[in-house]
Order: sequence, then structure tokens, then C-alpha cells
Amino acid sequence: MNPYIAEFIGTGILILLGSGVVANVILPQTKGNGGGLIAITTAWALAVFCGVVVAGPYSGAHLNPAVTVGLGIAGKFDWGLAPGYIIAQISGAMMGSFLAWLMYRDHFDLAENPGLKRAPFCTDPAIRNFTTSVMSEVLGTFILIFVILYIAGARLEDATGTPVGLGSVGALPVAFLVWVIGLSLGGTTGYAINPARDLGPRIMHQILPIKGKGSSDWGYAWVPIVGPLVGCALAAGLYLVVGS
Amino acid sequence: MNPYIAEFIGTGILILLGSGVVANVILPQTKGNGGGLIAITTAWALAVFCGVVVAGPYSGAHLNPAVTVGLGIAGKFDWGLAPGYIIAQISGAMMGSFLAWLMYRDHFDLAENPGLKRAPFCTDPAIRNFTTSVMSEVLGTFILIFVILYIAGARLEDATGTPVGLGSVGALPVAFLVWVIGLSLGGTTGYAINPARDLGPRIMHQILPIKGKGSSDWGYAWVPIVGPLVGCALAAGLYLVVGS
Amino acid sequence: MNPYIAEFIGTGILILLGSGVVANVILPQTKGNGGGLIAITTAWALAVFCGVVVAGPYSGAHLNPAVTVGLGIAGKFDWGLAPGYIIAQISGAMMGSFLAWLMYRDHFDLAENPGLKRAPFCTDPAIRNFTTSVMSEVLGTFILIFVILYIAGARLEDATGTPVGLGSVGALPVAFLVWVIGLSLGGTTGYAINPARDLGPRIMHQILPIKGKGSSDWGYAWVPIVGPLVGCALAAGLYLVVGS
Amino acid sequence: MNPYIAEFIGTGILILLGSGVVANVILPQTKGNGGGLIAITTAWALAVFCGVVVAGPYSGAHLNPAVTVGLGIAGKFDWGLAPGYIIAQISGAMMGSFLAWLMYRDHFDLAENPGLKRAPFCTDPAIRNFTTSVMSEVLGTFILIFVILYIAGARLEDATGTPVGLGSVGALPVAFLVWVIGLSLGGTTGYAINPARDLGPRIMHQILPIKGKGSSDWGYAWVPIVGPLVGCALAAGLYLVVGS
Repeated sequence: MNPYIAEFIGTGILILLGSGVVANVILPQTKGNGGGLIAITTAWALAVFCGVVVAGPYSGAHLNPAVTVGLGIAGKFDWGLAPGYIIAQISGAMMGSFLAWLMYRDHFDLAENPGLKRAPFCTDPAIRNFTTSVMSEVLGTFILIFVILYIAGARLEDATGTPVGLGSVGALPVAFLVWVIGLSLGGTTGYAINPARDLGPRIMHQILPIKGKGSSDWGYAWVPIVGPLVGCALAAGLYLVVGS
Repeated sequence: MNPYIAEFIGTGILILLGSGVVANVILPQTKGNGGGLIAITTAWALAVFCGVVVAGPYSGAHLNPAVTVGLGIAGKFDWGLAPGYIIAQISGAMMGSFLAWLMYRDHFDLAENPGLKRAPFCTDPAIRNFTTSVMSEVLGTFILIFVILYIAGARLEDATGTPVGLGSVGALPVAFLVWVIGLSLGGTTGYAINPARDLGPRIMHQILPIKGKGSSDWGYAWVPIVGPLVGCALAAGLYLVVGS
Repeated sequence: MNPYIAEFIGTGILILLGSGVVANVILPQTKGNGGGLIAITTAWALAVFCGVVVAGPYSGAHLNPAVTVGLGIAGKFDWGLAPGYIIAQISGAMMGSFLAWLMYRDHFDLAENPGLKRAPFCTDPAIRNFTTSVMSEVLGTFILIFVILYIAGARLEDATGTPVGLGSVGALPVAFLVWVIGLSLGGTTGYAINPARDLGPRIMHQILPIKGKGSSDWGYAWVPIVGPLVGCALAAGLYLVVGS
Repeated sequence: MNPYIAEFIGTGILILLGSGVVANVILPQTKGNGGGLIAITTAWALAVFCGVVVAGPYSGAHLNPAVTVGLGIAGKFDWGLAPGYIIAQISGAMMGSFLAWLMYRDHFDLAENPGLKRAPFCTDPAIRNFTTSVMSEVLGTFILIFVILYIAGARLEDATGTPVGLGSVGALPVAFLVWVIGLSLGGTTGYAINPARDLGPRIMHQILPIKGKGSSDWGYAWVPIVGPLVGCALAAGLYLVVGS
């Protein structure tokens, strides 16, 4: 499989399953309504697992521009591939959120609050304070990328020329990492920690004919882009300083 | 163990544990009443795990006609074995749901709503809209089979002539996959994603002398057969196009 | 480590952690009060995991007379060791439930209902019907032993003379198996599926000076002994018939 | 990476994620408010996982003075390194709880109860009884260290000179162990089972300008230091007696 297609499909699976669990837990009359924090965070973790299992052997399974940029800064990824990876990730995220919406359309229609209709697409801070929100996304992404670098670093010793990243062996530890980030660092902004995860679905929310959808909240859209990029740069920088 | 017996026993274990958790969570006066989405989805995932651990080395542990058909289309399974596999799966599912009913019979008797008495047997849409329901089953099964093909594909490199499928090594990733499908894509139809899982127990519901049981809802029974078969064909088709 | 000491310590850890979670979830004013089905079943599964990790390399980590008897019938365990194993398991279970009581004593004192004070020690049916209760324990133990035989069977190929059982490699699959049995088959009797797990702590409940403790319910005590022994015999018998 | 830096960073990650989940679940208006026992214990387990993945290959990933002292008594760690390890662990814990506070600051400000503001930092008994609290911390830490010694012991056979400890291979079993300790033995004191985990953040609570913070409860601070040290000594002692 071509690495760009792998990033597109892997990110699509990630976002279909991630948007799906939010829809299942918060939209009215679903089977999972009220499933709570443990359901949402478990599903996002396993969504990453599935994306990494599929894309791992072909693209290294970044599925996130912050991973691509973080590995680039750490000297573990060829920058020339980065633009294609990022475009594939954002497009895949758009496709994934489109499919989740298609599946839960009857339940989207039943929701009365526009905020509920937007939540399965993109993130929203619990308290609107840009400083804290950016810091939350920086910190969450910092932990994501820093720990991934040690997971990936450990695996590099067995590598035989495949693109550097999570591979499919790293699927389980990365899923655990995303699980705990959701539980522990997701309480303020809903842990985008991935610019494609937020931007792609937000574009879909803008485009799709969702009944009574309200604003796509573009005023907040820069936070889950800037925060993760700063966070991944800090993580890669610390990794280069303390060494492996 | 004969592969047909393995499919019968493996699917029986899957459905006993799957029907069991639904009974435990929704029937009155059980120890697990009100256990919620996380309990139901965790148990179905682990039910698959147990079925695959037992049947894996003998039949490849399909446990699902959509897996059998999907692997057949992908060129990874001998079509001649398919009829026997599917009969074994449906019979195993009937046996499993019978045992779950036997165990929870006192609690079935206490339930007043016929819908509650049917729910541990077969699936039921949250909102009755055939278009959305079929699409949900297509999409859920598509993800199931597509990811399984990459899990199985990865394992094929070590194979030494055993039937192609999940083996027992694939038990953990497949359990994780089923866990997230339940959490993320189960909110609309209750994720049959397996024709045998729905049809076998629905037949048992029709046959068994369940007190005050009401209709077996045969008008819906085609959805969890057609949806999964379309979904597995699409998954196998995409797998053949994008390659491994 | 001597295998009898391993069984004693392993079962002690299992029951300390198992009694502990029940105390934490149901006794008043604990940090985990109201934690629900998912907390109880997850902890019992991981309690088995810990017991198997410690005892596995030394005794095969049976931790349960039904495992000892089941492996004996299946021809995978020397009957001469069985009496010592079973005595060690019951004694270990007594020790474990004693420690759990010691730790949660202030909370036991606060509980007003004698049933609440007994629940962390031994099992109790949701509906008092001996036929259904025996059948539930038979079925739950049948699944436990049948799946364990395939887990252990798979591992036997690597063995080098250590006692047959779960070893420590089997810790994770066995934990998953116990997790799903709790979720799916625990709703009627609370899944003893282990005569030592119920009898040892019930003896401790009788002996210990628990304030306002009420009856130890000896009228029910035979069910979680007879049911598991029948269940393990059926599982071993089916294993011998269908083969490995 | 230098082993002291590894202990500092690993413990920092552990406490950031551990303090974070408590903040997310108990502080007002977070996304995870009310997430309950399963969310808190899952996150602490995975927090250990992440800390061990990062620090394992460099320091053995003790992340806890009770692990350092326990391994020292068991003859598996060079006492000369212990003071540096413990200083790094306490400093790392201070850093981790500082970052969690920074992230959740808006939510700390909204909490009205000083107890809620202290809970993400340090532990607090459910019932104030020093005897029971010390015993709880002794018992919880005893189980932690005793099981770790068997996990680490098993791994020693593959070692090639790296410092003895959990390595990164032990990350998953140790996470499972911490998970069950939280579920089963955390109900009385909130399972510090680690002097650095409680003391470091308590110092930060004293230092930081938390609005309306109330007392840092130094009267209780000795319990989660003395209990774990006694518990680890008992565990190492029993390990030396029963042998491996």
C-alpha cells in the first residue's frame, strides 16, 4: 500500500471510530447514550490501535501532523514526505467524520442543541480561555510525542528500512498512551492533540447539510493546530537534549 | 479438532458470553443490572477473544459468515468449506443463546417488557429506519473485515498450512477491534456485524418457550444479514484494490 | 518456591484483591463506593493475573480446585499432588479474605446490612433458586476450564518439565477469560466458579469477630462447591472428546 | 539517558497523568467530571505504563522510593544509587503535579471545597484512623513490591547489565498490577503506595498560590511515607524467605 493512501485510510478509520463514539455517547436515543468518560477514552485509544494496525507497515502510521512534525524534528522522518502525509491525514479525517455523521444522521437530527451536533466533529474547550486551552493542547501533545519517541526508538533497533513511525508493533503501547491522555489530560479541551483530527472534521461540519447545525466555531480552530505543533516541537527538542 | 466443530464451539462460546452480558446488564435483579455501555462492549470483545483462543488453531476462528465470505472474496479461504462453516456458525450461535437463556431464565421471567426479553437474543435498531440500519451494519462490518484482513495478512507470513483466519495469535487485536466497533459504531443498530450472531439467536427466540416473549421481529431480520454481507464484500474489494 | 506455598500465596493474592474490590465498591464511605460492574469484574480479572504471575512458574498457578480437578481429569496433572494443592488453595483464600477484612474494617463497621458485610467474603445468588444457581456455577466453570485447557494446551508445546497449568505466560489470556465470565455469566450467582474462593472466605466470615455480621449462610455453601466441580468435569470430558 | 534524569522524567509523567485524572474526574466543569473509580484507576495504571516505557531502559523505572528500597533489600539494586534515585523521584513528582495544576487551573479556581483542591495533589484517608491507614498503605505496597519482584525476577534471565527494575518490558504487567491495587486496595486511603507520589505533590500544594487552597494536611503526611516503606520491606523479606 502506498504510504499516502495508508495515512488517508488509517486516519479515516481513526476519526470514524473517534467521531463515532462521541456521537454514540452524547447524541439522543443511541444505544450508548450516557456511556461516559471511560467509554469515550477507551474508544479513542482503540481507534488509534486500529488505524496503526492498518497503516503501520506502509506509512509508519503517523495519522497526525504532530507525529509527522515531531519525528521530522527528531531526525527520524524525511521532511520531503511531510506535506503529502499531512494532506492525507486531513483528508482522511474529513472522510472519517463524514462516515460517522452518515451513520448517526437520524440521531444528529434528533439533537436540539447545536453544540451537541458539533461535538462529534471537533473539539471545544470546557472553559473558554485561550491561554489555558493552548497550554492544554501543548502539554497533551508533548506527552503524546515524547512517549511515542521512546516507543518508536525502542523499535528502531529491529527496523529494516520501513518508514519510521509506530509500525504495527507499536499499536498497543500507543493505544495505551492515548487512553491515559484522554483520561488525564482531556478534561479541559477534549484533547485534540492532533491538528488533522480537529481541522478535517471541522471543515466537514462547515460543508455538510446538518439540520440546525449552528456555527463551526472557527474562532477556536487555531488552538488545536497551534497547540499540538508547539507541543510536538517541545517534545522532539527535549528528546534531542536528554537523548535515547 | 475438526474445523466445523471448532466453528460450532467457538461461535457458541462467543454468543453465550455475548447474550450473557446483555442479559446481565438489562434484565431485572441481576448482579450487573445497569452496567452500561462499557460493560456490554468489553464483554463482547472478550467473548470474541475466547472464541478465537479455542477455535483459532483448528478453523482459523471465523465465527462469523461475514469473515468467511470476506476471506473468500479476498482469495484467502477455500470457498468449498464455506457452507459447512456458515452452518456451524449459525448452529453454534443457536446453542450459545440457548445456554444464556437457560442461565438467566429466572431473570427473563421477571422482565415485563417483551423487548427486554428479546434483546439478549438478537439486535434491534435504536431508531427504525431501514436505510440507516443497513448502512450502519454495512459500515460496522466493513471496518471489522477490513482491519481483520490486515491483522490476518500480517500473520500469514508465519503460517505453515493451517486454515487462514484469525488463528489464536490474532485473538487480542481482534478483540480490541470488536471492542471499539461496539463503542463507536454500535449506537444505532447494536452492531450485529455478523449474520450468524443475529439469525441463530433469533431462531432460538422463536423456538424457546420464553414466558410472555412477544414477537421475534422477523421484519428486521434481513438487515443484520444483508448489511454484513455487503460490508464484508466492500472490505474485501477495497483490500484487493489498495493491496497489502 | 515450593508449589504448595505458591498455591497458598497465589490464591491469597487473588482473594485479597477480589474481596478487596467488593469491599471497596459496596461498603459505605469507601473511595470506590458505587464503582459498579465494570470495576468489580476488572479487578477480579486482574487479581487472577497477579496470582498467576506470582505462582505460575512454581505450581502452574491453579489457584482453584476446579482447575486442579479439571487438569487431572484431562490427564494433564498428577492426582497425587491434588490434595495438597486444594488445601493450599482454601487456606490461601482464608488468608486473603482475612487481610481484606483487616484493611476495610472501619467500613465493615459502618455497614448496617449484614448482607453487605458478608458479600466481600462469599457469593450469594441474586434469586434464591438452587437449580438455577447450580446450573450457573456449572456453566461458568465449564467455560473457565474448557478455555483454560486450550490456553494451557497451546503452551504445553514449549514446556520443559514444569508442572502443567497456566504458567505465567498464560496470565493475560486467563485474566481476560475471567473478566468476561464475570461480565457475562456472573449476573445470577456472582460467579464463584472456584470452590476455594467461596469456602475459604465463608469459613473466615464464620470465625472472624465482624461486628453485627449475621449468618454465614451455610445453606448455600454447597452450591459453589458442587457446581464448579461438575462444571470442570464436563469441560475436561468435552476436551477429551473433541480433542486438541 | 542518565538514570537520575530518567527517574525524574518518568516520575514526572506518572504524576502529571495521575494528578491529571483526579483533577479531570473531581473538579467542576471538566469534560470528565464524575468519571468514577474505573476512570481514575485505569489512568493511574496507564500513567505507570507511560513512565515505565520512557524510563525503563535507562534507570529500570523505579519511579517510587518503595521500589528502590524493596529492590535494595532484595539484593537487586545497588544502595549507593538509592539517594539520587529518591531525590529524582520526589522532584519529578513535584514537577508532574505542578504541570497538572497549571493545566487544570481554571477548574481549580472554580472548586469551592479546599478538599477538592488538594485531592489531585496528595492522598487523604476516607476515614481518619491512623492505624487502619498505615495498615492499608503497608498492605497495598506489600502487594505492589512482592508482585513486582516476581515480574522483575522473571525478566532478570534476559538482562545484559542494565540496572535492575521494571525495564520497559515489564510496563504492561506493572500497569495491570497498579490497576488492581487501585480498584481493590485503594478504597481506604486512596493508595499512595509510593512516598514520592504523595510527598512531592504535597510540597507543591504548600508552595503553589492555589486560590482558597486550605491546609496541606501535614498531620497525615507521614502515613504515605511510613506505610509504603514498611510494606516494601515486608515484601522484600517474604521474597527472600520463600525464594524465587
